[in-house]
Amino acid sequence: MQRTLVAAIRELTRKQREEIRRAACAHGFEALFFDSPEDALPALADAEVVFGQSEFLARNAPRLRWLCSPFAGVDNFLAPGVFASAEAVLSNSSGAYGVTIAEHIVMVALEMLRRQLDYDAIVARRGWRRDLAVRSIHQSRVTLLGTGDIGREAALRLRAFRPERIVGVNRGGRDESGLFDRVLPRETLDAVLPQTDILIVSLPGTAETRRMLDAAKLALLPDGALLINVGRGSVLDEAALEKELRAGRLQAALDVFEHEPLPKDSPLWDCPNLRLTPHVAGNMTLPYTVERIVSMFLEDFENYCAGRPLKRLVAREKGY
Amino acid sequence: MQRTLVAAIRELTRKQREEIRRAACAHGFEALFFDSPEDALPALADAEVVFGQSEFLARNAPRLRWLCSPFAGVDNFLAPGVFASAEAVLSNSSGAYGVTIAEHIVMVALEMLRRQLDYDAIVARRGWRRDLAVRSIHQSRVTLLGTGDIGREAALRLRAFRPERIVGVNRGGRDESGLFDRVLPRETLDAVLPQTDILIVSLPGTAETRRMLDAAKLALLPDGALLINVGRGSVLDEAALEKELRAGRLQAALDVFEHEPLPKDSPLWDCPNLRLTPHVAGNMTLPYTVERIVSMFLEDFENYCAGRPLKRLVAREKGY
Repeated sequence: MQRTLVAAIRELTRKQREEIRRAACAHGFEALFFDSPEDALPALADAEVVFGQSEFLARNAPRLRWLCSPFAGVDNFLAPGVFASAEAVLSNSSGAYGVTIAEHIVMVALEMLRRQLDYDAIVARRGWRRDLAVRSIHQSRVTLLGTGDIGREAALRLRAFRPERIVGVNRGGRDESGLFDRVLPRETLDAVLPQTDILIVSLPGTAETRRMLDAAKLALLPDGALLINVGRGSVLDEAALEKELRAGRLQAALDVFEHEPLPKDSPLWDCPNLRLTPHVAGNMTLPYTVERIVSMFLEDFENYCAGRPLKRLVAREKGY
Repeated sequence: MQRTLVAAIRELTRKQREEIRRAACAHGFEALFFDSPEDALPALADAEVVFGQSEFLARNAPRLRWLCSPFAGVDNFLAPGVFASAEAVLSNSSGAYGVTIAEHIVMVALEMLRRQLDYDAIVARRGWRRDLAVRSIHQSRVTLLGTGDIGREAALRLRAFRPERIVGVNRGGRDESGLFDRVLPRETLDAVLPQTDILIVSLPGTAETRRMLDAAKLALLPDGALLINVGRGSVLDEAALEKELRAGRLQAALDVFEHEPLPKDSPLWDCPNLRLTPHVAGNMTLPYTVERIVSMFLEDFENYCAGRPLKRLVAREKGY
């Protein structure tokens, strides 16, 4: 019987579909492509391998052995019962988003430090003012909470702006990239936050990271500090942050939220000192990102077919 | 008779004024500080050294020997008759603005490539869309027209984003910074423009650079190219650029204009595909910039007092 690979990712180009088809064929798979998870439903009954981001795929694939998500964050797959097949393993595409998310991070950092929201308001009424006090990444103290692909690619770019220092914070306090001036364990966060001008958060959404940045932690940041969140909204106490922003004590650039899409009546929409983007830092709208996702999937597809461990296997109890 | 130094720069801090006062005193100068050129008028009659940016200062200082402008661009001092004193030399503060202008360049490049103007419009109506196709500095072909302090500081930062290549273009086609993949002479511009995704212009406003980027040159840029101008508005044919922007063929981020403040009825205010900022890329609103300006002035003040050549002397016939 022929084995079935289902890919349900609209963003795949014709060329990328062809590449996947060829790899599948070489290992006795038929590759089926769909532009939405719903369209894939009839094919899921027989699917052994699924390449797609919706938990709908996992729920409806009883013979599934491996699901590869094109996203880095896979919190939507972690609840019990999401996988109809008891034998399915999950992998992600962590490593594909560093380039585009790092560009987002540098962009919003500069926008906030250089008062672009204020200047935009001036320009919108055809005003001409040049005297708003600005700040710079140069000479700032940067802390990256999360030192994975995103944290490292961000550190690489931020370094060129000659900040005072770049500190990484992660679980073990270890790092071999050499991109940080220092890497500290999460237990030291209370000591690091008061020494932070720009805090960049790229943590996954797990039980462990939930509300890691609560009111008490936010209060440790110095006046005027800038918080950038590109990980998951659940890491942050949004109401506590909103208070700090409305008080003018902190600035923030949020790309992720506790509830997405951000509800129409959320007080964050018109919160001052906040740069709000609709979860666009790291989606698949940059062609390079999709190229990376496909080449990483194909690498793990070879591993899967050869019975080797998957390179980007997700430990479902940890969530990343 | 005591010699007189007039400093008419509002942005100087108390500490910086004290530093200048001490240096002046050590060489037999009295240092007088004013927050505007007009306030300085009575003191200009005796001024030997002036530190300030307005041509009003030059017009009203008959005994002037040296005027140091805190700006990098000094086109306002170049017209005949600006200096009341025939013996006055002019220096500028080229080298103080690279850091802040490079941060502006990276910011607007990312904003335009990542469709932030479009996303801002979506967010303003509380919309949630994530699917706009974006581009990146990564893998882009960057050309820097002008390889001085600004061009070099920009190249240094852009390099960290891993563009496909960074080409510098200047008068002689020479560069010793090692920050560019290649440096070419201006005569080759017609060959470079078609190979350019991001064109960054940091030229001074001189007779030689006037309308260097006319309709014919702009037409050589490939579809979708991004033009960033942080030098002088006179370098560009604004009407020709406006046509390209309205046609959707090019994108631009302009911080400088032929006429500043930009007239209220300028068609540029609501031109699509244009990021417009009110000449804020490199003013004195970043404290570090003012620190650099003061330390550079003090360095040349020692040169002046010792009868050595000024380090940042402007060749007035050239204009930089």
